[in-house]
Amino acid sequence: MELITSVKNPRVQFWKSLGSHKGRAEADAFLVEGSRMVLEAVSSDFMILSVLIREDYAPSFTLPENIPAFRLSAHAFAAVTDTRTPQGIAAVLSRRVLPLEGTRFVALDAVQDPGNAGTIIRTADAAGFDGILLGPECADLFSPKVLRSTMGSIFRMRFAFPQDLPAALCDLREKGFSVLSSQLDGEPFFERKNVSSSFVLIIGNEGNGVSEAVKAEATHHLRLPMRGGAESLNAAIAAGIMMYDLMR
Amino acid sequence: MELITSVKNPRVQFWKSLGSHKGRAEADAFLVEGSRMVLEAVSSDFMILSVLIREDYAPSFTLPENIPAFRLSAHAFAAVTDTRTPQGIAAVLSRRVLPLEGTRFVALDAVQDPGNAGTIIRTADAAGFDGILLGPECADLFSPKVLRSTMGSIFRMRFAFPQDLPAALCDLREKGFSVLSSQLDGEPFFERKNVSSSFVLIIGNEGNGVSEAVKAEATHHLRLPMRGGAESLNAAIAAGIMMYDLMR
Repeated sequence: MELITSVKNPRVQFWKSLGSHKGRAEADAFLVEGSRMVLEAVSSDFMILSVLIREDYAPSFTLPENIPAFRLSAHAFAAVTDTRTPQGIAAVLSRRVLPLEGTRFVALDAVQDPGNAGTIIRTADAAGFDGILLGPECADLFSPKVLRSTMGSIFRMRFAFPQDLPAALCDLREKGFSVLSSQLDGEPFFERKNVSSSFVLIIGNEGNGVSEAVKAEATHHLRLPMRGGAESLNAAIAAGIMMYDLMR
Repeated sequence: MELITSVKNPRVQFWKSLGSHKGRAEADAFLVEGSRMVLEAVSSDFMILSVLIREDYAPSFTLPENIPAFRLSAHAFAAVTDTRTPQGIAAVLSRRVLPLEGTRFVALDAVQDPGNAGTIIRTADAAGFDGILLGPECADLFSPKVLRSTMGSIFRMRFAFPQDLPAALCDLREKGFSVLSSQLDGEPFFERKNVSSSFVLIIGNEGNGVSEAVKAEATHHLRLPMRGGAESLNAAIAAGIMMYDLMR
């Protein structure tokens, strides 16, 4: 296997470019880091373009032979990865996802914190949801922090990226979906009524909640009860509580 | 009001020392940052030792006259605060909390991520829990990150800091509490039976879960269902889902 030591190497420059939204868009590719994420990528049906292995690192699993693998010096490896103390393996994947299909979705309306977005995707996977709609103002699904927070759920969940989220929700409503907006001035969540077996749960922006245009498409406006003095919940926590309750 | 400009000023040195565990222990005091936290501190029955205001900052509320207030240059203020872009106000408080009392508790067994610990406290407050037991290996409640993540719930919740968490749980069990351990090899959480109206929910370490010594004191060993391919949930998310379900 070729050893790459220079950060000026054109391949290193290309891998490094995947750290930015622009670079990912131009290459239509993204990079995942760490043993677990690479292993999940290998067992998924995502197309792996290459695997990068740090010179001193011995992978704990056998890589398929048809995937091009490169050895990188510690210096070159650090230049292309985001994590402060990554395991010495990463993979470059073609940027596509499983298309949306199913009856139970979560829609993210401008969830901007990468940790929140990734954690909501991970929780939706565990709760048994079928897929995620990501509005245009959300954190970039393919950014290193979102990917890391999904803990591999990126490879299992189905996604849609509607440019017009209200229109996408309107379509679902017309197909018989209940459209559930979670908002601080809504009706009590645990007393909700007439929720269809097909539904989409909307999680809003961390500071501003669900946008007015999205609220207007909702069939239900719901809030979690706050019994103590707390005024709100973290967006990912509120999403987790509602997702698990909807799937009971 | 006196203006302090030098970071070598003994007061500045003292306030800065509160950024470390050792400094907080020696002074038996801690520092909260930002308008919201200071306002919550003022309306709580915590003892405020002093308020620090950055030279260019105009507080949006009136401070009680009996609290010593100091103006600091931007440079001196930045030296004592943790946040990268704080609002220009902070308060030094005497380090005490409301003692534990009630019938519905959360126990943290070595929850080490400050964001997780603070978020669990905030969620417990919103869900209506009475108090939190913090085991000795948990993140420091008075560290800047934990305080920030509580979003003010530190001032409303009741706390205990047992040196021996298994012994504290044993005491509660003998008083008739159900002791619920959340663990990946437990029984289905939503099918739990015979949970007393007094209970304590145990949340374990992010990587290793609930410790064996703590598990041994539990009356129930429970796990949340994982329907998709996800192997686990974030500790704060799992805690949130269980807390809200227990309080329905």
